[in-house]
Amino acid sequence: MMNLAELTTPYLLLEPEKMRANIDRLQAHMDTLGVPLRPHVKTAKSIDVVRRLFPAQGTGPITVSTLKEADYFAEHGFTDITYAVGISPDKLPRVARLHRGGVCLRVLLDSVAQAEAVVAFAKRDHVSIPALIEIDCDGERAGLREGDAKIVEIARILQENKQFSGILMHAGGSYHCPDKAAKEAAAEHERATAVKVSEALRDAGLPCETVSVGSTPTAHFAKDLTGITEVRAGVYVFQDLVMAGLHVCQLDDIAISVVATVIGHRPDKGWIMTDAGWMALSRDRGTANQEVDQGYGVVCAMDGTPYPDLIVSSTSQEHGVVELRKGSKSKLPQLEVGTKVRILPNHACATASQFDGYVVPDQNELVFWPRVNGW
Amino acid sequence: MMNLAELTTPYLLLEPEKMRANIDRLQAHMDTLGVPLRPHVKTAKSIDVVRRLFPAQGTGPITVSTLKEADYFAEHGFTDITYAVGISPDKLPRVARLHRGGVCLRVLLDSVAQAEAVVAFAKRDHVSIPALIEIDCDGERAGLREGDAKIVEIARILQENKQFSGILMHAGGSYHCPDKAAKEAAAEHERATAVKVSEALRDAGLPCETVSVGSTPTAHFAKDLTGITEVRAGVYVFQDLVMAGLHVCQLDDIAISVVATVIGHRPDKGWIMTDAGWMALSRDRGTANQEVDQGYGVVCAMDGTPYPDLIVSSTSQEHGVVELRKGSKSKLPQLEVGTKVRILPNHACATASQFDGYVVPDQNELVFWPRVNGW
Repeated sequence: MMNLAELTTPYLLLEPEKMRANIDRLQAHMDTLGVPLRPHVKTAKSIDVVRRLFPAQGTGPITVSTLKEADYFAEHGFTDITYAVGISPDKLPRVARLHRGGVCLRVLLDSVAQAEAVVAFAKRDHVSIPALIEIDCDGERAGLREGDAKIVEIARILQENKQFSGILMHAGGSYHCPDKAAKEAAAEHERATAVKVSEALRDAGLPCETVSVGSTPTAHFAKDLTGITEVRAGVYVFQDLVMAGLHVCQLDDIAISVVATVIGHRPDKGWIMTDAGWMALSRDRGTANQEVDQGYGVVCAMDGTPYPDLIVSSTSQEHGVVELRKGSKSKLPQLEVGTKVRILPNHACATASQFDGYVVPDQNELVFWPRVNGW
Repeated sequence: MMNLAELTTPYLLLEPEKMRANIDRLQAHMDTLGVPLRPHVKTAKSIDVVRRLFPAQGTGPITVSTLKEADYFAEHGFTDITYAVGISPDKLPRVARLHRGGVCLRVLLDSVAQAEAVVAFAKRDHVSIPALIEIDCDGERAGLREGDAKIVEIARILQENKQFSGILMHAGGSYHCPDKAAKEAAAEHERATAVKVSEALRDAGLPCETVSVGSTPTAHFAKDLTGITEVRAGVYVFQDLVMAGLHVCQLDDIAISVVATVIGHRPDKGWIMTDAGWMALSRDRGTANQEVDQGYGVVCAMDGTPYPDLIVSSTSQEHGVVELRKGSKSKLPQLEVGTKVRILPNHACATASQFDGYVVPDQNELVFWPRVNGW
């Protein structure tokens, strides 16, 4: 774990006021639409962050991407957890262990084979493991398409052992929607598809208690969530350059940045070298196909102000090359060796995962909020 | 740390026999050329791996990319360490602490400002910190060009306080050299440049004890290392798809792979879904600009045999989409939910860094070799 007494760069800075504003903004929108959030903690992976999502009681319904997250949050008192990655039989003993510890962990699946495996395991192990059926609304990832007869077939297999909990979908396609109307349409398509599937299930006599949708863009741009029982989103807590490029947030809303130190210059090339390479920034280049390619990140002064047109253009493991964006008419700032800068990340989930925790200003000192990485 | 009793995918498998062969192959080549290796431990970051680089005594001269690696290997008895990333003044207290603990940690720099800062700190702190001057031989990263008058100027500043240790360069350009003659030429260019710089320093009356070169491609393809005192290389210990694409190794030499489980299918799209997304594989797409783009990795059976034309074509955080390479005439293998596969990585340094250690077959059991990530 990071030794704050000997803090050296690169490290991951978290600004709690920006995070608070991001959390409050989406919560207010959900309150208006009357649907509860089930935050996806795969972005933050930190109890200190996730406690702040549930101001009243400190715990609440969450979504996880790994069983390690589930174990960690269960240890911190969370009892209502959805594991939103398709379940495989080898993971069921870990799932059962959580159930026996008092955690209601919902699993996700999209095939008859998985449903049969989960039911057989639950019967043999005398444990109830509720399962959600994954629905695909935009061809981006896993899930069954609306209208597929397998949805009802799988629900029946689960329901025979009282393990059918509902449906879940993720509008990953919304990440390709820079304009407002397209994001609103993606949100409505996600909602409408979920409602159609849930109605078909109910028509078939199958209870569909949970109708779960979500992605950070659709959560922010949904105008109506009638028929939806919960919304999942993760990256909104921190925001990032991809979300800014999608106009889900402003650059100034981004709550995490990598603090780096200038370690050299190549005046012949117009380069400033820093000690934040891909190991710190991650290899994520999520803005590469957006209108504005932000390289490996936007370079800011330590007060958070971006230097005009200054980005990390390339990286090696522990080196970052900082230069002006191609075609820029700005002047390269004079940043002497030893100068500290802050780099806004393309993708908060990816960059945060390169660190074992967050350095957080708290009144007049820095504190450390650890993360749970791995599986 | 990984719980082997409850081992679930994704995890990082290390095959010790393949690693042994990779280590022996480069060591034999270096023995023939009569130059010692200073292995770069940034790839493995594991005492269990690095001990196997020095069969006689268990420790030896190493290169590190972070001060955390330096601290970790110092705790394990290593006393001759080169920190091969340009030094910034804020890191000098950590460097000095290592020196006071009996470790000779060489730092790297390429500017007068850094040299003055290192000398001033050493004088004030009553500690000797030897420094190497970084030389750039191919315009890829940091360093001064051969012939730059600053090289002698910096060496003099260091030598006044007996801190000048020599020069260091890294032929990063060799990563763009698929054909043998180009790699041999890159190796000879790296050698010749280093020798010229060291001779110019000696002509100026400055001792140049260390003449350090290295990159995995040039280390393997060097035919002569006259005038060189040490070679650095890191990725050779594991090898990876980038190195295979550069014909530095064969696919079968790659010693690490990510073990993943099939979690679903999209027959409409020709996709097999696994639980190894970019969080496990890393976002590194090092083969994207090579002759054969291997996507996010080559998919193999658990015995290590690659499935014909089967690659990870896209990823999200915890999902990997496996499909046939575009234009393939092979048939998608039937891999049921729960089937385990192994995925060869683009870049061993990047993929290994996503894990907290290696799962290693050792006689009839699995053991865990931890890694030291972070800074």
